[in-house]
Amino acid sequence: MSRKIRMGMVGGGRGAFIGGVHRMAAALDGQIELVCGAFSSNAEKSRLSGEDLFLPANRVYGSFKEMILKEKELPEGERMDFVSIVTPNHVHYEPAKMALENGFHVVCDKPLSFNMEEAHDLEKIVNESGLIFALTHNYTGYPMVKQARAMVKNGDIGSIRKIVVEYPQGWLSTKLEDSDQKQAAWRTDPTKSGIAGAMGDIGTHAENLAEYITGLKITEMCADLSAFVDGRLLDDDGNVLLRFDNGAKGILHASQISVGEENNLNIRVYGTLAGLEWHQMEPNTLCVKWRDKPLEILRTGVGELYPETQAHTRIPAGHPEGYLEAFASIYRNFAFCVRARLEGKEVDPLYMDFPSVSDGVRGMQFIERVVASSASEEKWLKF
Amino acid sequence: MSRKIRMGMVGGGRGAFIGGVHRMAAALDGQIELVCGAFSSNAEKSRLSGEDLFLPANRVYGSFKEMILKEKELPEGERMDFVSIVTPNHVHYEPAKMALENGFHVVCDKPLSFNMEEAHDLEKIVNESGLIFALTHNYTGYPMVKQARAMVKNGDIGSIRKIVVEYPQGWLSTKLEDSDQKQAAWRTDPTKSGIAGAMGDIGTHAENLAEYITGLKITEMCADLSAFVDGRLLDDDGNVLLRFDNGAKGILHASQISVGEENNLNIRVYGTLAGLEWHQMEPNTLCVKWRDKPLEILRTGVGELYPETQAHTRIPAGHPEGYLEAFASIYRNFAFCVRARLEGKEVDPLYMDFPSVSDGVRGMQFIERVVASSASEEKWLKF
Amino acid sequence: MSRKIRMGMVGGGRGAFIGGVHRMAAALDGQIELVCGAFSSNAEKSRLSGEDLFLPANRVYGSFKEMILKEKELPEGERMDFVSIVTPNHVHYEPAKMALENGFHVVCDKPLSFNMEEAHDLEKIVNESGLIFALTHNYTGYPMVKQARAMVKNGDIGSIRKIVVEYPQGWLSTKLEDSDQKQAAWRTDPTKSGIAGAMGDIGTHAENLAEYITGLKITEMCADLSAFVDGRLLDDDGNVLLRFDNGAKGILHASQISVGEENNLNIRVYGTLAGLEWHQMEPNTLCVKWRDKPLEILRTGVGELYPETQAHTRIPAGHPEGYLEAFASIYRNFAFCVRARLEGKEVDPLYMDFPSVSDGVRGMQFIERVVASSASEEKWLKF
Amino acid sequence: MSRKIRMGMVGGGRGAFIGGVHRMAAALDGQIELVCGAFSSNAEKSRLSGEDLFLPANRVYGSFKEMILKEKELPEGERMDFVSIVTPNHVHYEPAKMALENGFHVVCDKPLSFNMEEAHDLEKIVNESGLIFALTHNYTGYPMVKQARAMVKNGDIGSIRKIVVEYPQGWLSTKLEDSDQKQAAWRTDPTKSGIAGAMGDIGTHAENLAEYITGLKITEMCADLSAFVDGRLLDDDGNVLLRFDNGAKGILHASQISVGEENNLNIRVYGTLAGLEWHQMEPNTLCVKWRDKPLEILRTGVGELYPETQAHTRIPAGHPEGYLEAFASIYRNFAFCVRARLEGKEVDPLYMDFPSVSDGVRGMQFIERVVASSASEEKWLKF
Repeated sequence: MSRKIRMGMVGGGRGAFIGGVHRMAAALDGQIELVCGAFSSNAEKSRLSGEDLFLPANRVYGSFKEMILKEKELPEGERMDFVSIVTPNHVHYEPAKMALENGFHVVCDKPLSFNMEEAHDLEKIVNESGLIFALTHNYTGYPMVKQARAMVKNGDIGSIRKIVVEYPQGWLSTKLEDSDQKQAAWRTDPTKSGIAGAMGDIGTHAENLAEYITGLKITEMCADLSAFVDGRLLDDDGNVLLRFDNGAKGILHASQISVGEENNLNIRVYGTLAGLEWHQMEPNTLCVKWRDKPLEILRTGVGELYPETQAHTRIPAGHPEGYLEAFASIYRNFAFCVRARLEGKEVDPLYMDFPSVSDGVRGMQFIERVVASSASEEKWLKF
Repeated sequence: MSRKIRMGMVGGGRGAFIGGVHRMAAALDGQIELVCGAFSSNAEKSRLSGEDLFLPANRVYGSFKEMILKEKELPEGERMDFVSIVTPNHVHYEPAKMALENGFHVVCDKPLSFNMEEAHDLEKIVNESGLIFALTHNYTGYPMVKQARAMVKNGDIGSIRKIVVEYPQGWLSTKLEDSDQKQAAWRTDPTKSGIAGAMGDIGTHAENLAEYITGLKITEMCADLSAFVDGRLLDDDGNVLLRFDNGAKGILHASQISVGEENNLNIRVYGTLAGLEWHQMEPNTLCVKWRDKPLEILRTGVGELYPETQAHTRIPAGHPEGYLEAFASIYRNFAFCVRARLEGKEVDPLYMDFPSVSDGVRGMQFIERVVASSASEEKWLKF
Repeated sequence: MSRKIRMGMVGGGRGAFIGGVHRMAAALDGQIELVCGAFSSNAEKSRLSGEDLFLPANRVYGSFKEMILKEKELPEGERMDFVSIVTPNHVHYEPAKMALENGFHVVCDKPLSFNMEEAHDLEKIVNESGLIFALTHNYTGYPMVKQARAMVKNGDIGSIRKIVVEYPQGWLSTKLEDSDQKQAAWRTDPTKSGIAGAMGDIGTHAENLAEYITGLKITEMCADLSAFVDGRLLDDDGNVLLRFDNGAKGILHASQISVGEENNLNIRVYGTLAGLEWHQMEPNTLCVKWRDKPLEILRTGVGELYPETQAHTRIPAGHPEGYLEAFASIYRNFAFCVRARLEGKEVDPLYMDFPSVSDGVRGMQFIERVVASSASEEKWLKF
Repeated sequence: MSRKIRMGMVGGGRGAFIGGVHRMAAALDGQIELVCGAFSSNAEKSRLSGEDLFLPANRVYGSFKEMILKEKELPEGERMDFVSIVTPNHVHYEPAKMALENGFHVVCDKPLSFNMEEAHDLEKIVNESGLIFALTHNYTGYPMVKQARAMVKNGDIGSIRKIVVEYPQGWLSTKLEDSDQKQAAWRTDPTKSGIAGAMGDIGTHAENLAEYITGLKITEMCADLSAFVDGRLLDDDGNVLLRFDNGAKGILHASQISVGEENNLNIRVYGTLAGLEWHQMEPNTLCVKWRDKPLEILRTGVGELYPETQAHTRIPAGHPEGYLEAFASIYRNFAFCVRARLEGKEVDPLYMDFPSVSDGVRGMQFIERVVASSASEEKWLKF
């Protein structure tokens, strides 16, 4: 008989942000249960976090290493099935590697790793292990992103000519990292975040979204990154010209100093027959701008949408689904795949849809290339 | 040590809509676990639904009666703490009554009951039992509804003069009940829905929202209900003039034949100093229209909002929270109250905020009065 | 050979608001020239206003009586063709009557007159004279209002069931008439405005718009008018239930105490096949909410619109036309009709489209009935 | 005594688009009268156009040369005061030069000329003549553009860091120039339009708007222009990275193949204290995104706006002003300056605000540089 898939979490203790998001996302659809965790590198903090989450004391660990080793010894009916890694960038690689090497599937927050070397290594380990690996580029989980992708794939908008993808935020417009704001601190710290700031944190989401929806690949880029806030060590803003493998042109910009912007990821894709426009902050709406008929507003749950869209919609039209639901779709699809593996069954291809380790490698390459392009006097760098 | 609160569900088997919503809402915040259910009056269907939900076979019951009696016999460490009732209107009263009489707390979908008599009876039972009862007027769970209410309470908008509350939908603009659409069928059937159609299903949400935000009470109403679709037995549209206890005037209209409208609950409240505007379909935005300064757009998670608002916000600005999160806030607050009861502790008043059995009685009175007003030749009926 | 149509103006001197609007509207399309005026009952003020407008001194008069008599004596090639009346409500009747009786066509601001008696009398005089009379219910001049009307007429939205028309403003939420604000002063003064305040000033626009777009007639109404501001003598807010001659139901509300609202006239019309939504403050957009296909956004100048719409559009899509253009369309159509009369030609029926004296009578009846309904204890008053 | 300013027009005959816009814009405020014209290089077509405009036959000319020479011979009280040039780009220089050399002020459509040489020459002639010259970069005429500029100038948004200016259109997404669409034909023809297509037609508007609002100058650019439509000879899309003289970074993109876009000029400017956002298609709204207080929506005519804004607003809040009103503000300000010159008076500096010949030269330089940058392999070209 079927059962819930069991999750162990690395990171996400008291005071963290994204850990709670992962837990809500994992819980939402009733497919996954949190059974254990190493919520902090501080054992006492991990213990307290475990209590907050109603976990039995013996399943709360002081380190991811302890967790992986101890859980491995538990009987199949009890031990975790997968590890969810929700730590800052520089603590993705080690727990992911160790989990995979010990036979656990992995969900990992993005970007994949601290640097390219780790990324390639992880890709190799995943491929060799045959285990299931999901990267939480969560914005691709929205129903209307699925619809946009399906429309492109089915030729509804014709051949793509232009893509504009934006991700402005304003929360780092002052030197917030000098206060005790934990989120700001590690994101602006090259020893934790890697070689990029805004481009790694959110630029990769933009890159991932653009390639996911269009099915195109960026082939060349020309970047201009800045660190506007005095004393900041990593980019807090970047403007990038793009060229795609079908000849399309594009613009990507991401910013954390665009004052007053919340989390305004958005994309416009123009084909020969129609343009698409989608905004993360009003995610249930997809504008379709036809060449020769009136503008249409597609809405989650309304009318005839593609099966991909419907498969990622939970509630009827007009009941807004949000960020957590999109995030949850990655966990749900991952859980369906893990369960199918456990039960030796096939997964409906509609659900075999979550960002992979290869998407993660591509994101790391994007970071590496965009930083190189910005430093270069050459106009175009190959991607 | 603390533990999750245990839920048993009545209704919500395969093919139902609102049952799944309640389960997601209950799961989201990690405070509640589903431990048992009587998901259908058809025992086999209940069993299959239980399997879908990964419940052990011995906790899936063929009827709510069986569930309540069997669970009552289980030891405290195992049995359910509360019953969640997600059946159509005519099957609210009996399970709620029986659950309360057997010592279980209750969450019940709205409207409270099939008729006034049941409503008064339930109110009496709740009050005598001292048990905790929550009615899922879920729209009051949104952060920006909390903000609107707090602004009114704190005098930010001055003395209220006018309220316009609307709830247009279009899904019943044809005779959908003649197809096999289960949701349409019971909502338009007087033997299951009660004396009202749209006014009971959604008009009560509008009434509840208006009174919740403003803290005012409707004192008089003048209604004009219609059944526009040929052969429909209950109202599918209604327009109502309102008068409030402070002298404010208002309009409430609700409709299920407003073609092309999804679930467009919205409210405008005009005081002497400012007007407020909120739309359920874009719920993280609250417009504040000041008399003497520029229009402000308040957004979930942005800037200084009231503690009530923050207490019902999960994620940072720009990550849209939706319908399920608002719904979940009712379950979470309810769970906090049940846990406090179990542990003999106090609850932070910020969380003692969910619709009560008295709100349910008021909703039933609204239904009764609005139907009477529509049938009457008198202009104003007292509420 | 053709020539511009010659306008003489009554009212609209320095300090007035609507006079300037009429002059810009008349000038826009190059069909009309202002040749004379009696801009104020104060002769000196009239003279100065005439100078501002670059008129020769001998064509600026001290009273409308003087203007009509003197202009009548001028030769045909020189004298004015029509009188434009832009005075407060209580000074519409006399100049209109005198102009008509002396053979001049008339454009008159709304509402038609101070009371019903004047209205009926004017209608009689217009009909007997055979002269051309236009009332400036300017909001019907917008391209997307033409489109909405044409869609209804052509059956695109099916049979109409529900109409919601709103006209909230906030500018009179305090006792502005106690300052020296001229616009507020006469509008709130029963000796100048008539028996209604907001209902006369803007409620009539709402009534006119609803009947213009739908082609339906209001048959019954139930009104609740208020004067919220202490000491105000006329209504500053009103809520009205409506019934239409085809069985449709509706709501009309108009307010001048809805704090923070600018000039938010808007309408929603729901038929059996589609709903329409239009907002005056974003006038180039018409939402069409289809029952069985995605929401469409029709835009001025985009794609295939009805000939009526195109005939009232000046510039290509995306170049917003506004209030003055809509107002100008009334003047332009009026000028086309006057010129056709002068030249003994036919007018394209597309341009025989401006509010008539009968629309003005209907507006006055609306005022009379809505005030009576509010005062009555009967639920429904016939219209 | 004052009189209207007299306009003679070059171009704008039957079938033209922008000529009619100029005439409506010139007429709107009652400051200017059209007294003569050379509406087409085809004398018969010019004559017919003159008849349409109710001009006397002797003031309708067969060529701009004839017009300038004949008008010059008329007495001061009769002859035109200025020439308005509304021809395609390659017919700007000659009539402008000749008008200036014969003592007439000039209004000229943008871009200033066909090439840089003409541009520099015109600037020299204007400066030497001391005559008044206005270029119709009409988008700077909107009230909320004035407000944005004033806010920047007064330091309200702090030091500017980032500017994003966009001008997508979709009307040339197919090879429209192969049909008989006159507007498409000359704009895509290098012998009439010059070296640029979209960048000249609309990219210059974007450049002008960005520099006008911010008061900054572009110092470097990196461009990627494309001609997406097969066989098209000039760019129909372009993406440009910008650097400004204060260290700010920016993006400019303009397109005529962005399917479904109407005329979507928009700009976002981010300073250290606030961000501004304005959209031409909803021009009466200016979003102000504060760093530390709620988002404000400034609206034409509402509350306390800068004097510059008020000086370019005609009608009260909520009565939308549009494209023609913004265009008219250029003509009105120009007329005020011409009249002041005629009467030997000073002009209120609030009205000495319209694009000059130097703005035109800058626009031509932008065209030249952006085309060069796109062709270059160097990353950054100086502007």
